[in-house]
Amino acid sequence: MTIDPREMLRVALGQARTGLAEGGIPIGAALFALDGRLLGAGRNRRVQDGDPATHAETAAFRAAGRRPDYAGTVMVTTLSPCWYCAGLIRQFGIGHVVIGEATTFPGAHAWLADAGVHLLVLDDEECAELMRGFVRDHPALWREDIGG
Amino acid sequence: MTIDPREMLRVALGQARTGLAEGGIPIGAALFALDGRLLGAGRNRRVQDGDPATHAETAAFRAAGRRPDYAGTVMVTTLSPCWYCAGLIRQFGIGHVVIGEATTFPGAHAWLADAGVHLLVLDDEECAELMRGFVRDHPALWREDIGG
Repeated sequence: MTIDPREMLRVALGQARTGLAEGGIPIGAALFALDGRLLGAGRNRRVQDGDPATHAETAAFRAAGRRPDYAGTVMVTTLSPCWYCAGLIRQFGIGHVVIGEATTFPGAHAWLADAGVHLLVLDDEECAELMRGFVRDHPALWREDIGG
Repeated sequence: MTIDPREMLRVALGQARTGLAEGGIPIGAALFALDGRLLGAGRNRRVQDGDPATHAETAAFRAAGRRPDYAGTVMVTTLSPCWYCAGLIRQFGIGHVVIGEATTFPGAHAWLADAGVHLLVLDDEECAELMRGFVRDHPALWREDIGG
């Protein structure tokens, strides 16, 4: 990667903060090319659109449009991806994943590493604090978003 | 289940045929309650909407709207789910999956069975013929939809 992973994380974190301001679940993501070009960004849209199928990673993936190949892309997400989003990453062969934090939700990132995905977990305190506050204030909504 | 799985499959197959008529990838899905109520249906929308994130199962899941629990639901799909869609099923705890066919694409259904999902593969010849024809006529589009 030619740009600092923490710079890419700022884009995902900005999406998460926008989601929180909208009354939504504060998880954001962005898909980058390895040279640092932003291909697409998005955030969880369960509350905003009443759409349970759009997690942050799927929103970023959709925003990047149709592509024949994802090996040279980096999915950057504020939170360790759930099975749904990890499945997206694995199916489309996204080569690299940068994760803000994996402490408030363990996610399926170990499964991705086992499948050969290049993984970086940043242990970012801003990301963790954002999720801790959200889970404390909206436990039922959080349970709904991860299927119980 | 109180209704015939093949009746549910007709709904998913109808979605797949509509997708083909639209110039899209002919995979359809539907989410049912165990008592046979249709909760939502949809089809792959890569071509129609330029949306790589909407596979048939995610479309059906979205159409069913927000729900707190999926244990008593059945995801019916014309084709064995890819990792992305299998991840959706696993993350949200969808209890039952009915698959039209798993011969033209093996999918991740064995992984779901290992995770405790109740699985039924119908070996439906109409579903298989639909996919065989599509893969023969549009190999590049099919590769794109499953990430190469």
